[in-house]
Amino acid sequence: MTAPADVLAAAAARGWTLGVAESLTGGMVSAALVDVPGASAVLRGAVVAYATDLKASLLDVDAGLLAARGAVDPDVALAMADGVRRAVRSDVGLATTGVAGPDPQDGHPPGLVYVAVATPEGRHVRRIDVDGDRPAVRARALAGVLDLALEACGGTPQWRAAH
Amino acid sequence: MTAPADVLAAAAARGWTLGVAESLTGGMVSAALVDVPGASAVLRGAVVAYATDLKASLLDVDAGLLAARGAVDPDVALAMADGVRRAVRSDVGLATTGVAGPDPQDGHPPGLVYVAVATPEGRHVRRIDVDGDRPAVRARALAGVLDLALEACGGTPQWRAAH
Repeated sequence: MTAPADVLAAAAARGWTLGVAESLTGGMVSAALVDVPGASAVLRGAVVAYATDLKASLLDVDAGLLAARGAVDPDVALAMADGVRRAVRSDVGLATTGVAGPDPQDGHPPGLVYVAVATPEGRHVRRIDVDGDRPAVRARALAGVLDLALEACGGTPQWRAAH
Repeated sequence: MTAPADVLAAAAARGWTLGVAESLTGGMVSAALVDVPGASAVLRGAVVAYATDLKASLLDVDAGLLAARGAVDPDVALAMADGVRRAVRSDVGLATTGVAGPDPQDGHPPGLVYVAVATPEGRHVRRIDVDGDRPAVRARALAGVLDLALEACGGTPQWRAAH
């Protein structure tokens, strides 16, 4: 798994600050970043929009989109990443949404997760399908959004070579 | 330590929903509550206002108070608890602010923590002094705000007897 410290270092190298919008991870992503000494120079804050209506009111996700697709959707994930950039005034927004289980949500099976990252240079979203229980689904969502953030901040040789 | 499940159960027994405003805990409190199956019926969301200016913009903490006292202050903790009730439209607000260390902040030593809880019935704040490293300070802040929330939701016999 990408280390939270590597994400902070990659963002700092670009002169970028971070914000986090969390649904199923519920604060885990932000807490993992805050654990790193010096995080306060890069991480501005986070919004845990656990209730669906907060995705609209706090993160400015289009209410029509939420009504049409539900909260577990790639465009909702992207809108959450955009929204937290505005809400916490950060350069980069990380977002997680998905079904932790054990019950389905909005017609989606447990284990379906979307992670998204928005930077000044682009917007990225990735689908992750997890076969596991609630803690496993959340852990994979955390790892997935850190991986994507590191790539989007240019922190991996693979990413740099491809762009 | 008070179990997150007990806080959720005590709030649910009152018909109250929860919101969390976090500074030094950075999402840990929210994540601990989300870990409990069924949390979505009680927990609405959280705001991690790690950067001080976000305490004003996202939680409506008075900017003059923040300028005069800094972020590590009992009245700031209470204002964060009030503010998150409004931000996430919850009945109860939990808040943490403090100095995780290793460096002092705003003239306060590492280990100074304030936790606050606002409910429809009252506002409560508690000072905690922790002798320990960053993880220890955060862990005590988490435990302290859960303890105070359980008491404020009437979840302990001691609290019920005293009120």
